[in-house]
Amino acid sequence: MTAIDEPDTRDLAFFDASRSADVVNARMGADISPRFREIMTILVEHLHAAVKEARLTSEEWMAGIEFLTRTGQMCSDWRQEFILLSDVLGVSMLVDALNHDRPAGSTENTVLGPFYVPGAPHFENGTNICLDGKGEPLIVRGRVTDNDGKPVAGATLDVWSTNDDGFYDVQQRDLQPENNLRGVFTTDHDGRYWFRTVKPRFYPIPDDGTVGKMLAALGRHPNRAAHLHFIVAAPGFDTVVTHIFTPDCRYLGEDAVFGVKTSLIADFQHVDDLAQAEAAGVANPFWTVEWNFVLASKDEVERKRAEKTS
Amino acid sequence: MTAIDEPDTRDLAFFDASRSADVVNARMGADISPRFREIMTILVEHLHAAVKEARLTSEEWMAGIEFLTRTGQMCSDWRQEFILLSDVLGVSMLVDALNHDRPAGSTENTVLGPFYVPGAPHFENGTNICLDGKGEPLIVRGRVTDNDGKPVAGATLDVWSTNDDGFYDVQQRDLQPENNLRGVFTTDHDGRYWFRTVKPRFYPIPDDGTVGKMLAALGRHPNRAAHLHFIVAAPGFDTVVTHIFTPDCRYLGEDAVFGVKTSLIADFQHVDDLAQAEAAGVANPFWTVEWNFVLASKDEVERKRAEKTS
Repeated sequence: MTAIDEPDTRDLAFFDASRSADVVNARMGADISPRFREIMTILVEHLHAAVKEARLTSEEWMAGIEFLTRTGQMCSDWRQEFILLSDVLGVSMLVDALNHDRPAGSTENTVLGPFYVPGAPHFENGTNICLDGKGEPLIVRGRVTDNDGKPVAGATLDVWSTNDDGFYDVQQRDLQPENNLRGVFTTDHDGRYWFRTVKPRFYPIPDDGTVGKMLAALGRHPNRAAHLHFIVAAPGFDTVVTHIFTPDCRYLGEDAVFGVKTSLIADFQHVDDLAQAEAAGVANPFWTVEWNFVLASKDEVERKRAEKTS
Repeated sequence: MTAIDEPDTRDLAFFDASRSADVVNARMGADISPRFREIMTILVEHLHAAVKEARLTSEEWMAGIEFLTRTGQMCSDWRQEFILLSDVLGVSMLVDALNHDRPAGSTENTVLGPFYVPGAPHFENGTNICLDGKGEPLIVRGRVTDNDGKPVAGATLDVWSTNDDGFYDVQQRDLQPENNLRGVFTTDHDGRYWFRTVKPRFYPIPDDGTVGKMLAALGRHPNRAAHLHFIVAAPGFDTVVTHIFTPDCRYLGEDAVFGVKTSLIADFQHVDDLAQAEAAGVANPFWTVEWNFVLASKDEVERKRAEKTS
């Protein structure tokens, strides 16, 4: 760097509230990761702007320090309170959206959530994955296609949901059968899949920690709108991590982690027909939902990303 | 709230990346603390803006989650890594500045730091508070006045600093005498104070945790510019938490916690004069510094605050 290029940072050596973020950012070394420099510059600017805009008092600052400390100390191998914080502040959904921008018409992503377990058993289409017999029967069926409507054969659909008590199997290892309401299905030559499960219901995210206290202080409840989880993958296509939501859940418009996108709300049909129930191998009455997934090819996603950054 | 007053928040029910902060903030309840609503609204807006501006990847988000988690888990009764984080990002100085805005001419605040211990012994003016005999002798003297230059008699000056090895007594309970380099002095009828100590030296903030790693990644060192700590208090006046800095420290322009304000850099004089040393009761050669503190009255500070918020 020549003397001409070198910015005059002498007067940024000392603290000055009117341009405090500049003083902090001017301190970074010359030979650091350019990406880390970019991220930290932006974070420091917004952090200082927020503190100034809120005119934070010393007591409020201390309350923030204590909140962050307790949140970190709540974390363990089986509990990640900072991810929960990111979830309820909509940051997880935002990061997901920034990183999964697909061509219009493709199925949208939503949060993965903390209860995905890789390695669920593979099943034939039509299998019933509800092993505890609780809840209202549900038949899920549909197709996986590309953006031109062509079927994607051999796509895998990794499916999981809570049982009718609102818990995932891994939350109740002693109470639920292993792999209750989990399974991997594969589309046929026409891109079709179908399986039996139970209608999902709402459930609360863990709310006995700092995030639960914060939600209460914000006048918010901890409930997630009823949903089924899906990871849909096929060679050459961008993997989709998504949900389908029931349209009748009371928390649909106020999902605690902002996971609901209108494009992911499905039309669940109630059926009271003994003959149909017998033919489908479920108890009467039951529910059905038809849901099609549209996968974007990796090429399409790459092109979209290149457009954004150019 | 009447139907007319009620904002139309229906379409903020579902996540939308283009106005994600609004979606999150619209979720707050009606009957929460107005101040908490204000602070959280601002924090969520800046958090979402920062994530968007940085176009944070999922991996970078996860690295952030892990950093916050480890920072919380580093905290203990004797270590507060989140305060350290706030310090090195200039947030502590900013909060201090926002909360201690005094009339021009008044002595400025700076960070309290983690090593203040209330209840230090009260001494007569002139007492030497260096109990371990290490370092270059220093005589500190000056006056405490109000903003009209009138002496403030009976003001207390609570003083503390590291020893010549760069550690506070409480960091080395086994190695340093108790209350080494700590003491409370009181101004005389003319507002004068004077005491003996040693010239302060730079020292590193604790850098064996997540904040130390972050500083290294930012190309920054952990050193604080050499300083003496003061808390100056008198009835009817706004208490000042401040430092005086030596002008010759190599880290003056790059204090790790941005504690240096130009108004707090003092003129330390080197004296090599046996007669003067003997008269002052210090070894030759020695240093002197004359430093005057200007206190703002509580009324002045209140008026200033009222102007700001009106």
